[in-house]
Amino acid sequence: MTPFPLYPTTSLAAMACTAVELIELKRDGRPLPAAGIEWLIAAYTDGLVPDYQMAAMAMAIVLNGLDAEELAAWTNAMLNSGDILDFSNVPFAKIDKHSTGGVGDKISIPLAPLVASCGVAVPMMSGRGLGHTGGTLDKLESIPGFTTRIDKERFGAILGEHNLVLAGQSDTMVPADRKLYALRGSTGTVPSIPLIASSIMSKKLAEGLDGLLLDVKTGSGAFMQDMASARELARTMVGIGSSSDVETVALITAMDQPLGREVGNANEIRESVEVLRGAGPDDVTELVFTFGEVMLDLAGIDDGRERLQEAIDTGAGLQKLREVAAAHGGDPAVLEDTSLLPQAPHQATIEAGEGGYVTRCDALVIGLAATRIGAGREQMEDEVDHGVGITVHAKIGDRVSAGDPLATVRYRDESRWVAQRDDLASAWTVETARPTVGDLVVERIDRTQI
Amino acid sequence: MTPFPLYPTTSLAAMACTAVELIELKRDGRPLPAAGIEWLIAAYTDGLVPDYQMAAMAMAIVLNGLDAEELAAWTNAMLNSGDILDFSNVPFAKIDKHSTGGVGDKISIPLAPLVASCGVAVPMMSGRGLGHTGGTLDKLESIPGFTTRIDKERFGAILGEHNLVLAGQSDTMVPADRKLYALRGSTGTVPSIPLIASSIMSKKLAEGLDGLLLDVKTGSGAFMQDMASARELARTMVGIGSSSDVETVALITAMDQPLGREVGNANEIRESVEVLRGAGPDDVTELVFTFGEVMLDLAGIDDGRERLQEAIDTGAGLQKLREVAAAHGGDPAVLEDTSLLPQAPHQATIEAGEGGYVTRCDALVIGLAATRIGAGREQMEDEVDHGVGITVHAKIGDRVSAGDPLATVRYRDESRWVAQRDDLASAWTVETARPTVGDLVVERIDRTQI
Repeated sequence: MTPFPLYPTTSLAAMACTAVELIELKRDGRPLPAAGIEWLIAAYTDGLVPDYQMAAMAMAIVLNGLDAEELAAWTNAMLNSGDILDFSNVPFAKIDKHSTGGVGDKISIPLAPLVASCGVAVPMMSGRGLGHTGGTLDKLESIPGFTTRIDKERFGAILGEHNLVLAGQSDTMVPADRKLYALRGSTGTVPSIPLIASSIMSKKLAEGLDGLLLDVKTGSGAFMQDMASARELARTMVGIGSSSDVETVALITAMDQPLGREVGNANEIRESVEVLRGAGPDDVTELVFTFGEVMLDLAGIDDGRERLQEAIDTGAGLQKLREVAAAHGGDPAVLEDTSLLPQAPHQATIEAGEGGYVTRCDALVIGLAATRIGAGREQMEDEVDHGVGITVHAKIGDRVSAGDPLATVRYRDESRWVAQRDDLASAWTVETARPTVGDLVVERIDRTQI
Repeated sequence: MTPFPLYPTTSLAAMACTAVELIELKRDGRPLPAAGIEWLIAAYTDGLVPDYQMAAMAMAIVLNGLDAEELAAWTNAMLNSGDILDFSNVPFAKIDKHSTGGVGDKISIPLAPLVASCGVAVPMMSGRGLGHTGGTLDKLESIPGFTTRIDKERFGAILGEHNLVLAGQSDTMVPADRKLYALRGSTGTVPSIPLIASSIMSKKLAEGLDGLLLDVKTGSGAFMQDMASARELARTMVGIGSSSDVETVALITAMDQPLGREVGNANEIRESVEVLRGAGPDDVTELVFTFGEVMLDLAGIDDGRERLQEAIDTGAGLQKLREVAAAHGGDPAVLEDTSLLPQAPHQATIEAGEGGYVTRCDALVIGLAATRIGAGREQMEDEVDHGVGITVHAKIGDRVSAGDPLATVRYRDESRWVAQRDDLASAWTVETARPTVGDLVVERIDRTQI
C-alpha cells in the first residue's frame, strides 16, 4: 500500500491508481486509511477523481459500510472541502436543528424564532423539498420577497443582528457533498447510513455550531421507515457530532401521518404563525416545545418550556420571525394577515365514505399527492407552486361520519388534481374500532448512549 | 418496477431512472430481469448510460454476484453489442482455445497449427500481455511483418484458405466488453467471476464456434491463484458455453512455474517452433497433446494423439504456421531459422547460490521481472520489446550445483535489468530435499459436471 500525500506529485494516472487502491480496500471489506479518505474527497471535489471511481466507491460503502473512525475522517474531509463558518464573535451559544424530512414538517419555522428570542443564536441552513417531503426553504419562499440565497457575509450579519438567520447553503460550503449527493441520486447509492449521516453532519458542522438537535423521523412518511434504521442513523450522527465536539442530541419522532393539519408551502407558513400565536395544533406545538427545550438546554439555558411559553405569550417569537423575514427581503405583513399568503385559485374536498374512527392517515400518500398536485418537486429542477396545499381535517383517532371532509385541497391545475384524487383519498382508513395513537417522540439518543 | 423496452421512447432522464432501478435491484441482492440487462448493455455501449452508473452496477455485481440466468443474459447482451462472425460456409468444425493467462504460456502457437492441420478450423482471436502475463498477439508480432490487426473479411479469407487465423479482436466485435473492461480496470471491479466469465465468453461466442477449450490457470502465476476460484470460473464459463450451445470443456492447469523454458515474445516463438519440430520441453509438449486431443474430440475427430504426432513428424504443423504467418504478412523464414528472430543485445545470467533441488521457480516473480525488463507491459499503452526474454534453465525438481545458471536474461536497457536482478533471483528456492512435482492438468470440467 502506497502512502497518500494530500496532493501526489505524480501524474493523473498515478492518482487514478491510488483511487483504485482505495476502492479495492473498501470492496474487500478492509478499512480506509484516514489520509486516503482525505485525499479521495479533496481530489474528487477538484475533479481529479472522476465520477465513475467515486460511484464504485459509493456502492462499495453502501454494501460494506464505514466504521466509526472512517466515518469521522469521511465527514471531516467533506467538511474541509469548502468554507467553514466561524461565529465566535456572536456572544450566544450557536444551536441548530435538522430534520431528516417528513410531511407537514414545518417545525423549524415556529421553533427557530422562539428559541432565538430566548437568547440562542440559530444559524439555520435548510434544504428544499424532494419527493414526498417538503423543505423549509420552499416554505419560507412563500413569503413574498423572502430570499434564502445569501452570501456568508450577509448570513453572518443577519445572525449577528437578529440571533437568527434562515438560509440555504452557499455554493462554497461542503462542495464535496453537493457533487456526491447528485452522484448518489443517479447511481443507486442513496440508502447508506454512513453516507447519509456524513452528508447531513458535514453540512451542519460547517455552520460552526456549539450544539445540534437532530430530528430523525421514522414511519411511512420518513426516509428511514423502520425504527431500527432510524435508531442507527441517529446513533451514527450523534457519534459524529460528539467526535467533533459539537454536543448533539437526536430525537426519533413519528412520521406516520402528517404533522399538524397543513401540507404545502403557504399552508405551512400559516400554521406556523398559528403556533407562534399559541393557537397551533397540539402535535406541532408539542414538538416545538420539546425541541425548543432541548435546544435551550444545549445552550445552557434552564426552564426552557416556561421561556418558550413566554415568547409565545408576549408575541416575541412572532416578532422575531417578522424581523428576520424582513432582513431576508420578505414582506412581514403576510405574517400578520396570513390571508395575504399565496393561495391557488381552486378548492376541492375529499370526503369520508363511511363513518368511524380514522385509523390511518398516510403521510407518504398525502406527501406524494401534494407534491404531484404542485406543492413539491419530483426532480430537483422542478418548480414548486407555493399556493398549492392540502389541509388535513381528520387524523388518526378522530371520529368522522360519512360525508365529513377528510381534507381540503388547494390546486391550480385541474388535471394534476384529478390525477391524484383517488391516490389521495386512499391515504385514509376509517374503521369502527378506536385506534391507539402512538407517541410523537419515540426515543432520545445523546452521547451518553454511544 | 417498470418494463424495460429495448429503447425506451422517453427521454434520457427516464433512461437514467431505469438504470438506477436496475442498480438498486442488484445492490439489494435481487435478480436483474433479462430485458433490463439487455437494455443496460445496449444503452451503455451507445453512451446513453454513463460510466458512473455502470461503475456502480459493476461494484454491486462484484459484491452481490449474478445468478446463472442473469449471467446468460449479460453475456448474450455483450455478445449482441457488436458483430457476430458466421463461418457456416467453412466446411470444418470451428474450435478455439482460450487461456486465462500465465507465464511462458505459448501453448496456442504450436497448438493451433497442429490442430488446424488435422482438419479443424481454428478462428483464433487472442489478446495482449498485461501485468505479469504474456499475450499471444505480442508473441506473434515478434515475427517480422506479422499483423494481427485485420478486418473481418480478411479474417474469414485466411480462415477459409488455411483453416487457421491468428488475430486480435476487431473494434466492431463486443464493443460493450471493450468499454466495460477498461472501466473495470479503473474502478476496482476486476475480480468478479461473473464479470470475468462473461467478458471471456462473450468474445469467444462472437467467433461463431462449434466448440471451445478453456485453459483455466491456477497457482502463483495465474489470475485465479487458488483452486476454488479457478474451479468456479471454469464451471461458470462451461455453463455459459453450454447454455449457448457451444460445447465447452475447461481444463484447470498448474501455473506455479513458467510453462516450458522460455518467457518473452521472440523466446516463446523459438520454443514453439521446437515443439512443432518434436523437440520442445516436456511440459509444453504434453499440454499441446492434451489440449489438441480435446479440440479434435470437440470436432468429432478420434485418435487425436496419433494425428497430432503425425502432424509433428511430417512437419505439417510447422508448415501450417509458416503459411498462416505469411498470410498475415509475416516473414516465414524466421520460423525455419529462429536465430533470425529479434534478440535484445545484452545477456546476463542468474546463478544458483547453493546446490540442491529447485523447490520453487515462481511464475509470478519471473513474469513480473520479464515484463519490467521490457518483454511486457504494466499499462495497456506501454510498448513491448520483442527481443527481451528470460530462458529458465532450472525448474521445480531439477538438481543444481552452486554456480549453475538458473536463468539467462536477454535485455536492452541496462538499468531496467539491474532494477529487476534481485527480484528475479528471488524466484528460485533451492533446498536439499527433492520436491514432488504436481500434475500439470489438475481437473477437467465439462457440461456433464454443471
